[in-house]
Amino acid sequence: MAKSIKKKEQPIILITNDDGVTAPGIRNLVEAVKDLGKVVVVAPDKPQSGMGHAITIGFPLRLQRVHLMDDVETWQCSGTPADCVKLAVDKVLHRKPDICLSGINHGANHSINVIYSGTMSAAIEASIESIPSVGFSLLNYSMEADFSGAKQYARQIVQQLLKGKQDKHLCLNVNFPNVDASLIKGVKVCRQAYAKYVEDFDERKDPSGKSYYWLTGEFKNFDKGKDTDVWALEHNFVSVVPVQFDLTDYKVKKKLETKLKF
Amino acid sequence: MAKSIKKKEQPIILITNDDGVTAPGIRNLVEAVKDLGKVVVVAPDKPQSGMGHAITIGFPLRLQRVHLMDDVETWQCSGTPADCVKLAVDKVLHRKPDICLSGINHGANHSINVIYSGTMSAAIEASIESIPSVGFSLLNYSMEADFSGAKQYARQIVQQLLKGKQDKHLCLNVNFPNVDASLIKGVKVCRQAYAKYVEDFDERKDPSGKSYYWLTGEFKNFDKGKDTDVWALEHNFVSVVPVQFDLTDYKVKKKLETKLKF
Repeated sequence: MAKSIKKKEQPIILITNDDGVTAPGIRNLVEAVKDLGKVVVVAPDKPQSGMGHAITIGFPLRLQRVHLMDDVETWQCSGTPADCVKLAVDKVLHRKPDICLSGINHGANHSINVIYSGTMSAAIEASIESIPSVGFSLLNYSMEADFSGAKQYARQIVQQLLKGKQDKHLCLNVNFPNVDASLIKGVKVCRQAYAKYVEDFDERKDPSGKSYYWLTGEFKNFDKGKDTDVWALEHNFVSVVPVQFDLTDYKVKKKLETKLKF
Repeated sequence: MAKSIKKKEQPIILITNDDGVTAPGIRNLVEAVKDLGKVVVVAPDKPQSGMGHAITIGFPLRLQRVHLMDDVETWQCSGTPADCVKLAVDKVLHRKPDICLSGINHGANHSINVIYSGTMSAAIEASIESIPSVGFSLLNYSMEADFSGAKQYARQIVQQLLKGKQDKHLCLNVNFPNVDASLIKGVKVCRQAYAKYVEDFDERKDPSGKSYYWLTGEFKNFDKGKDTDVWALEHNFVSVVPVQFDLTDYKVKKKLETKLKF
């Protein structure tokens, strides 16, 4: 009886990502928080990087039970990261989880990356659904990346969030520097740096002579502030940026109210 | 000579959308602004609704010259709306346009729709690239929708923006009510309403008995404010919401600075 009461009190932790259910990053995240609540994984069945906040509206979705590790209920979904959150709430959990975690992404989601990121779109989707959420990303694209520092800090952050009552729309974009755990200096709450990709397309010819284009780009930080995520990461801090889904630019709104004339 | 000087002075207007190059909405937008500058169209070769801010990173892109209407250079692209903007700047225009317009979308992009919208992701992508931009949407999903009011107001808005110098990151989310042009009361600068879809999945069985899920949802406005886009549209105004790509929630940032402890 005591056991069942304890079980009921366990927070439900929904975990997803955008690299797909087989990526090392999600396994590391599950390992990091597994004993903090009841973990349920619903993640894409294939990589979904760069999917932004895409949702699937022209096709139906599939959901399949798979094995990720013992004692962790895991499902793979044919949709985007945002789809995974929606489907998890409606068809797997049949309730809202206490927190939704996304990642750990293989690669940075600081600064402007938040806009393109499938990892962050899952977290933002949860926050729209009034579920506090965190997206985690490590500044290393390799499938062999060392997640030990990331795991340690991800666990601490989730522990703190589960302790108190959080804003229902809380959404954190957390990035980990790509350094040994012993070199991480701590956690910094930051703003999103103004940085972007200076893009280019690599034009090639197919065997029949027709052109095709590969997107390439160089990351460029235009922001000299010391309160940004890029600055924090460059100085070996874990960056935490609170993210909102109200995109209204209130400063420009005020200007336009007097400027636009009809 | 005079003619060539005049041509040089013409603003370059890049037009894209998310319903694809063959959609009536984009044709109506081109018609509305055709004589305000040199219009170049680079739009998806297929519908891309709900693509959010997806970009194509695992596949190369194709670009093909097509005919939309006489005297309008038009290209179709195999990528997402955000890809279209990137590719247009780098491989079609070889420069930044003076303005980027996206739409006219068949269906609403007010309130939370801005997050899922391919139309708005193209506009936001342009604003990241320091190109002033506007996404236009009509509250009617039909391919037979009447765009006459939308055209009239879209033209007025673009005319005003081309007259003065705009903030390089200006990005407007413009929605038109689905009423006869004569019933439109004017233009209102608004904030994004707090509204969302209360979602549900319609579970069905395929011929071999396996489940698949269709996303369905009911739109629900939780926002009683009279300064929102949803309110304006319900009262037959054209809504204009200025949109930003800095997602930092500064209020929550301040709270977290004292709350998170490591």
